[in-house]
Amino acid sequence: MLTLKGRECLLRADVVVYDYLANPRLLQLVPIKSKRIYVGKKGSSHSVEQVQINALLVKEACKGKVVVRLKGGDPFIFGRGGEEALALKCAGVNFEIVPGVTSAIAVPAYAGIPLTHRDYTSIVAFVTGHEKDQAAPMSPDWSALAKIGTIVFLMSFGNLAFIVEKLISCGKLATTPVEVIEWGTLPKQRRVSGTLSNIVSRVKAKAIRPPTIVVVGDVAQLSNELSWFDQKPLFGKRILVTRSRHQISEIADRLEMDGAEVLEVPTIEFCPPTSWKNLDRAIGNVGQNLKKYSWILFTSANGVTSFFERLKKKGCDVRALSSSKVGAIGAVTASVIASYGIHPDLVAKEFRSEGLIKALTEHSKKARGSRLKTY
Amino acid sequence: MLTLKGRECLLRADVVVYDYLANPRLLQLVPIKSKRIYVGKKGSSHSVEQVQINALLVKEACKGKVVVRLKGGDPFIFGRGGEEALALKCAGVNFEIVPGVTSAIAVPAYAGIPLTHRDYTSIVAFVTGHEKDQAAPMSPDWSALAKIGTIVFLMSFGNLAFIVEKLISCGKLATTPVEVIEWGTLPKQRRVSGTLSNIVSRVKAKAIRPPTIVVVGDVAQLSNELSWFDQKPLFGKRILVTRSRHQISEIADRLEMDGAEVLEVPTIEFCPPTSWKNLDRAIGNVGQNLKKYSWILFTSANGVTSFFERLKKKGCDVRALSSSKVGAIGAVTASVIASYGIHPDLVAKEFRSEGLIKALTEHSKKARGSRLKTY
Repeated sequence: MLTLKGRECLLRADVVVYDYLANPRLLQLVPIKSKRIYVGKKGSSHSVEQVQINALLVKEACKGKVVVRLKGGDPFIFGRGGEEALALKCAGVNFEIVPGVTSAIAVPAYAGIPLTHRDYTSIVAFVTGHEKDQAAPMSPDWSALAKIGTIVFLMSFGNLAFIVEKLISCGKLATTPVEVIEWGTLPKQRRVSGTLSNIVSRVKAKAIRPPTIVVVGDVAQLSNELSWFDQKPLFGKRILVTRSRHQISEIADRLEMDGAEVLEVPTIEFCPPTSWKNLDRAIGNVGQNLKKYSWILFTSANGVTSFFERLKKKGCDVRALSSSKVGAIGAVTASVIASYGIHPDLVAKEFRSEGLIKALTEHSKKARGSRLKTY
Repeated sequence: MLTLKGRECLLRADVVVYDYLANPRLLQLVPIKSKRIYVGKKGSSHSVEQVQINALLVKEACKGKVVVRLKGGDPFIFGRGGEEALALKCAGVNFEIVPGVTSAIAVPAYAGIPLTHRDYTSIVAFVTGHEKDQAAPMSPDWSALAKIGTIVFLMSFGNLAFIVEKLISCGKLATTPVEVIEWGTLPKQRRVSGTLSNIVSRVKAKAIRPPTIVVVGDVAQLSNELSWFDQKPLFGKRILVTRSRHQISEIADRLEMDGAEVLEVPTIEFCPPTSWKNLDRAIGNVGQNLKKYSWILFTSANGVTSFFERLKKKGCDVRALSSSKVGAIGAVTASVIASYGIHPDLVAKEFRSEGLIKALTEHSKKARGSRLKTY
């Protein structure tokens, strides 16, 4: 749910200052040479740390660096972005605010709960369980809150019983629907539906733990009809993908699209050979040995890129292949060859060495036939 | 502020059903062959139309199409996404909800207003000015609302005086800060700061018109310190870009990054020549005439792509350039040549024909010199 603008910022970052991240893949967008600074905070009091984070942002920015302060959700919704922006302003540092999708909206959406609905309510309120003074209990105006159609509580798991008690004592019906969502939007998402009167025991029975989002209001019952994320065909399945690191995302994306939780454990790594001697001999000085080959057959996409990279290193390019025909073991390999400007003369239909040999044999027969006709 | 997931959906859409769009560029992501259906609605009653939209979504989905219902902001925050999802559910159509950045959050962020801040409030409420029954005035519980720290009103411009009156009569201080933002997040954004007691006259004085977002609460005063978007160097400047359509976005993006409003008016269009005769003669049958050329000089990136596309049409590829050296007028042209697997033998330093001639002359002299040494 990263925005395009958010991605653009990460791609351009010299320094990234980040919290605990729901999705560590975000950091993969940051240039390798850039600095990554973890200032993660979980639970309890951290007012001192916030001052330190503010100072860190100012310090890095004053070095002339492009600093990205990466937060989950939206920086101005319970994200303390306001405090950080004020610190930057005081220090005379220019900044931009990049809005994001807040968990207060995304998590209910993944549970199938529209926070507003014409038949139920035209008001939704977001409330945080963490207050400035951690020692004090939550202190919103409960009687006012009890009259709001939809209420979303963030970071409030420890206060659930307190919230329920306050809302009921302030006149909210005990039958008001409530939904508690654990790890919302992630493949390990779990949900508990209930009412103000029974949600605490149901949450206990299912051993729900933070992070959670709590939705109170009539719209919460719509999750019964509109839940979609945990209905996906692979939801609840944990799938190990063992491809090489740079090829993993394609299959991982597809599996996640169907609801799976994907663990990336590359068991293959592509690396240069211990010696380039044989390939270098085949290529020759500025590629002159390549003239000897009637055919050059590529049996993998990785082979193609390695070969052309090596050509470049040896001071020549695709023009050195002018006397050779080029074959590919399959459509993917062929498309990588095409990306180097060469349209393969042959693509095997069976994606294995035997298929390539077969295709080559057929091609030669045909060529011989046509030559007989032509000459 | 489109999310990566939102973009993925647009790229895969067979059918897009869209409203009035703040950013028409979103539609450019949709495949050309896909169907675009405008169901835009602006102002007043449209309950009949909503039923028709629901039916349309079901109809297109039942044809087996990938249907994207494109909305500005978030579909479940005053977006009637709940109603549409229920219609799909009733019809047995599978769906996903793709959360987005709601204007209720993005617009205040672009005005420099953190909706929550530990020193001011831990509650924010979103309220819509449009109610189910358009004839009736807004009917939230005003006394409850008046006790909420931050209130964001959407689609409420016509009701501003009514909102102010209700909040004051329900006990909200007349000195409570208010910010009204017109066309928020866009380069034509305008803002009016005030309090409950003077905002109506200030808005009138500045002739503010919808679309607007209204923020009521102490955090609204932070816009004085934290406004950043309308402080950008090119903010308020309207800039015409006349490049060809497929080259426009790079410069447009940079200008917008600095706050400019960009009008795209392509005055150049690249199209095929009326006759390919001369180029075809130069290429010859499967590229055999190219052998005659010691050098092939490319004077533009467009020239490179056209040339190589034509090579492909004539049944050959970069291998046909094996007897020729390749020159480029500049670094950009060179990089396009390199994308076809050829590393240019020569790149001019001055990006014009004269520069290319000069570089070529120098290269020839050097080459002659080195040949004398080598042989």
